[in-house]
Amino acid sequence: MKTTNTKGSLTGVGTGPGDPELLTLKAVRALNEADVVAFFCKKGGNGNARAIVDAHIRPGTIEMPLVYPVTTETHKDGADYLEPITGFFEKSAKDIAAHLDEGRNVAVLSEGDPLFYGSYMHLHVRLAPHYRAEVVAGITAMSGCWSMTGMPLVQGDDILSVLPGTLPEDKLTERLLDTDGAVIMKVGRNLPKIRRALEAAGKLSGALYVERGTMANGTAQRLEARDETPAPYFSLVLVPGWKARP
Amino acid sequence: MKTTNTKGSLTGVGTGPGDPELLTLKAVRALNEADVVAFFCKKGGNGNARAIVDAHIRPGTIEMPLVYPVTTETHKDGADYLEPITGFFEKSAKDIAAHLDEGRNVAVLSEGDPLFYGSYMHLHVRLAPHYRAEVVAGITAMSGCWSMTGMPLVQGDDILSVLPGTLPEDKLTERLLDTDGAVIMKVGRNLPKIRRALEAAGKLSGALYVERGTMANGTAQRLEARDETPAPYFSLVLVPGWKARP
Repeated sequence: MKTTNTKGSLTGVGTGPGDPELLTLKAVRALNEADVVAFFCKKGGNGNARAIVDAHIRPGTIEMPLVYPVTTETHKDGADYLEPITGFFEKSAKDIAAHLDEGRNVAVLSEGDPLFYGSYMHLHVRLAPHYRAEVVAGITAMSGCWSMTGMPLVQGDDILSVLPGTLPEDKLTERLLDTDGAVIMKVGRNLPKIRRALEAAGKLSGALYVERGTMANGTAQRLEARDETPAPYFSLVLVPGWKARP
Repeated sequence: MKTTNTKGSLTGVGTGPGDPELLTLKAVRALNEADVVAFFCKKGGNGNARAIVDAHIRPGTIEMPLVYPVTTETHKDGADYLEPITGFFEKSAKDIAAHLDEGRNVAVLSEGDPLFYGSYMHLHVRLAPHYRAEVVAGITAMSGCWSMTGMPLVQGDDILSVLPGTLPEDKLTERLLDTDGAVIMKVGRNLPKIRRALEAAGKLSGALYVERGTMANGTAQRLEARDETPAPYFSLVLVPGWKARP
């Protein structure tokens, strides 16, 4: 039987939102020390996180794609989502544990920050009680987006609300009224509803719409100027706080 | 008269929360390209941001401490705060502009992320309309703290609220009841009040208290176990969301 000393260690590595230069020095070191690099992806592609770190994968590294069994657009309350996704996280954790048991260090890539709306957390809660585990914070998508646009989001005693675009319109309006700054995630097909909620809250004119923030093909514009064509799932809307400005 | 081509460029550089390895590759490059490195600090010390980037300052770089005229604990609504701080930002922007006009590239350090509760934003809004300006996103303190503790904060359709500990107790309780995950900033002398608000909202038992997150002397513990001695101003309380866990 192996002792804990010979087991590998698990590292959740935040890759940041897209620009490969937004990797941290710590993430680069973790990739250098990894024997196995695992990453979540959809069927048919290796995904953004793997692309972001491409320059830092050592030759000989074992690559381990973790392919989602369902798409992120599936309705999340039904058993048709929860059962396969739970099984998928269980199986992924087991496969990673097998490498750790063999003494291999495993880095799991996570777009943005691993513990902020990231899939990595589902592996962390399953594996961290049994193995050495560390999380390397990453630049979040929202941080990348407001930096790219140069828009100060919150200051001083401002309240920031991070809201899913999936909220019902009246709830979204209510929360936009009751906050200083806001970030609206999961825009996708919720775009027309988000626009109406911002208008009702009197905050449409300051809002920015950002698509693929910090990536080479990223764009930002005033939400008012954005047309009604569907938005990608991973676009964001930023609403500035800033009630006082010294 | 100089043309815009000969002017220097301004870069707001997020240094992350404390661990020098949480600098991004882009931040390191910005420091290498800087002729002048400016940083906010209190009288009598160069501050955390300057310490974090110490290994990356080139010899010959002009250092430019921007010394706050008031402390962060001053009551922020009074003229005794707003007037000196506004004058301070005006003067700092003017001093930086003088370097930019001479063709020098100026990097302004910002602990955490420059546009997320950072002082840099006050220089950005004054200078970005007139000079080439770029913001390099940084790891926020909250991100560093939840990564250090390995606590998944929010997932799926969770709502995250970032709240100042300066809120009145009833407002704080109300907002804690009405969110999934929460981060409470500016803990300091507000610690006993924050504890009461969390208790009233039924969320005390899951809350973590983090002091000097990601720094060498950083600590984290359950808030319930934290004694009543005053907390440093830049400590944080993390309240996990996670209503569903596949």
